[in-house]
Amino acid sequence: MQHCDSLISASWCITVEPSTQVLANYSVAVHKGQIIDLLPTVQAKRQYQADNVINRPGHVLIPGLINSHTQAAVSLFRGLGASYPANEWLGEEMVRDGTALAIAEMLRGGITCFSDMYYFPDIVAETAIAMHMRTSVGMVVCDKPSPWAENPAEYLNKAVDLIYDQYAGHLLVNTHFAVLDSSRLNDDTLKDIRIMADQVNAPVQLSLHRTLADIEASIKLTGKRPLTRLSEAGLLNSTLRAGHALHLNHDEIESLAAAHIAVALCPQADRRCNEGRLPYKELSAAGIRISIGTDNALRNNVLDMFHEMRAVHMEIPATADDLVACASQLLRMATIDGATSLGIADKTGSIEKGKQADLICIDLQQPNSQPVHDPLTQLVYTAQSSQVTDTWVAGRQLLNNGEFTLINESDLLQRSAEWQKRVANKYLEHKEKP
Amino acid sequence: MQHCDSLISASWCITVEPSTQVLANYSVAVHKGQIIDLLPTVQAKRQYQADNVINRPGHVLIPGLINSHTQAAVSLFRGLGASYPANEWLGEEMVRDGTALAIAEMLRGGITCFSDMYYFPDIVAETAIAMHMRTSVGMVVCDKPSPWAENPAEYLNKAVDLIYDQYAGHLLVNTHFAVLDSSRLNDDTLKDIRIMADQVNAPVQLSLHRTLADIEASIKLTGKRPLTRLSEAGLLNSTLRAGHALHLNHDEIESLAAAHIAVALCPQADRRCNEGRLPYKELSAAGIRISIGTDNALRNNVLDMFHEMRAVHMEIPATADDLVACASQLLRMATIDGATSLGIADKTGSIEKGKQADLICIDLQQPNSQPVHDPLTQLVYTAQSSQVTDTWVAGRQLLNNGEFTLINESDLLQRSAEWQKRVANKYLEHKEKP
Repeated sequence: MQHCDSLISASWCITVEPSTQVLANYSVAVHKGQIIDLLPTVQAKRQYQADNVINRPGHVLIPGLINSHTQAAVSLFRGLGASYPANEWLGEEMVRDGTALAIAEMLRGGITCFSDMYYFPDIVAETAIAMHMRTSVGMVVCDKPSPWAENPAEYLNKAVDLIYDQYAGHLLVNTHFAVLDSSRLNDDTLKDIRIMADQVNAPVQLSLHRTLADIEASIKLTGKRPLTRLSEAGLLNSTLRAGHALHLNHDEIESLAAAHIAVALCPQADRRCNEGRLPYKELSAAGIRISIGTDNALRNNVLDMFHEMRAVHMEIPATADDLVACASQLLRMATIDGATSLGIADKTGSIEKGKQADLICIDLQQPNSQPVHDPLTQLVYTAQSSQVTDTWVAGRQLLNNGEFTLINESDLLQRSAEWQKRVANKYLEHKEKP
Repeated sequence: MQHCDSLISASWCITVEPSTQVLANYSVAVHKGQIIDLLPTVQAKRQYQADNVINRPGHVLIPGLINSHTQAAVSLFRGLGASYPANEWLGEEMVRDGTALAIAEMLRGGITCFSDMYYFPDIVAETAIAMHMRTSVGMVVCDKPSPWAENPAEYLNKAVDLIYDQYAGHLLVNTHFAVLDSSRLNDDTLKDIRIMADQVNAPVQLSLHRTLADIEASIKLTGKRPLTRLSEAGLLNSTLRAGHALHLNHDEIESLAAAHIAVALCPQADRRCNEGRLPYKELSAAGIRISIGTDNALRNNVLDMFHEMRAVHMEIPATADDLVACASQLLRMATIDGATSLGIADKTGSIEKGKQADLICIDLQQPNSQPVHDPLTQLVYTAQSSQVTDTWVAGRQLLNNGEFTLINESDLLQRSAEWQKRVANKYLEHKEKP
């Protein structure tokens, strides 16, 4: 018998890589945070002696989902709408509490890694580490002063410090430059980002052509569309990740493809900014790697990758539908394509020996997922994020049969209630002003 | 102290009618299946002595959701896609097991009434009654023979028998004529439906212009668009309910509005049949009453009204969004507008004294719904159907704190597993044929 930390056995296991295999009655052996084996349960029970034995009949075990584009902290203002002035609250406490709330929601919904773009990235990283969540933390850069930095130079310096001094080689934290509002950034700042990103060898993530207003603002300021300016600043290469990527013309799509730039669609939020549709077909026809982000809770209310997979599916005409192939594609977008986009496919995004054990179990023994004619289609088209029963990040179990192991949920709800009161009082204060 | 069967107290209560009021710390008193009072909890605890005291802090209590257009039985083939030949299985056992599975899913997701359109409506009704579910059962009429009836005359006679002899005045069951495939029905059958519906004073529900293929088939057969033929058969009046209602031109929308015909949109299923969009704006601009259906589990995989409300929301551009007003409108479509469309607004669809106690509680104390800045927006935009903890139909509690009271869930799962095996074996059998 071989010893391992955990042996997780489920009715089905979907590997994603090297291909989307659906394996019945399979087990994953986890040791020191890594996947050390993937084998039939019958064999696993003979071969491994585990400290933690997790049996999940009727469940499907898959790689953790990757939220490729979000701003975790603003979850504190969930449901208040995109025009809510969240920045009025900007500070360490807000970023800590908001990020913690978002991480709790994501872990419960099977998200084991998120790519963030917000102020106080040090607090985002600290919070993620404390909660044992994987993240690519966005080192925010913009022209406007904020409580985080006064000017582009300070944003860039703080970014480089964190990327180099704090998180280089960290187990859970990766880093990137996060360009907010790139359409309105001046040329010098764009060029400085390119220089700094090369210096510290970090990827750059930005929101690209999210709204027509962004594009119009850029044309008004500079006479050019945002993508043209990014190209002139030397930013169009494979280290760039573009969120949203709406309102692109044919040539622009070709230039993204030629530069091997990955796109993070934010299906639910973006559909409402783009006359009800996503450029999914055009982008995938051009061979662009597409991952999925939830966007933030002001534009999208929830950080739920199951919703988002189905929102992409809505783009595919019923007549052209191959349900199984499409489910496989959607699951890839939500896992390995996210990992590849974030540059961490060596660590996560699939169930393969040697990768970190970022894993989730989903209970299909619920009326809405029955009968299980095919675990892959029922997973993608019928499961709610609430059917996630177990979540592991780097081998540590953070959700166990529906219960958080590390998060104090009553404390979390208490803090939410306090923020609700503060927000309500500030609203009253606004209203009472003459 | 006044006696009542149940006193349900929640942090918030949303009435829907006479307007969308959000009442904090309110209670509903239920007696003999009816809502007898709605009052502040402080007052309710002084005034009522209840056999069942249900306290739900952090929850919102709303009217049960109404699924205005579905075919419950085909849930047995969930996830197999719209082209799966479910009719090969047609019979009493299939309709009983499939309807039971669908009802379990619906009750767990807060749906307290569904409007059905399928064969063996007697079995649908029997199953709904046994599970204490409210339904408007569709007495199917078509030209093609089936295990239920040989020809239009038999379909119609069976329909009239059931409407008149079996379910007239039933507490839980209402009835309607359900016209399958109206685009391909011959003129005589359409006219006979009109005559019979008048005779027994029953509404008529049909799928209208669901696909372009339906419209083309009608033009090829008769030279006319389906709506024209329905109009000529005298079917365009306020007793008609139209499911889907896609691909309508301006004059057709006007004619539906003029005839006071209600439309049941099936947002998730229909978007994929209609180039990614719904005619929500056009229909509501014309003043047409719109309710929401899930369609069936072959075209939509799940019967989930929370998904469907959000799918309608996707039609509303982010720039034009008033989140609170829109949430109110979506909740009305999913409750009172459904009840009015089905002709049962005197019984259900809102929390008002004298109505049947069709009620649901939703737990907002989950990370994805926190903080609760507004219970109405968090309910509509953030809740999953799994957050429904309690469901009552006509005062009987069918889901209690997440547990079924009447449904034997392990028995249900057992039957699902048997159907999965039968379907898999038949598939093998098909494959083995030369």
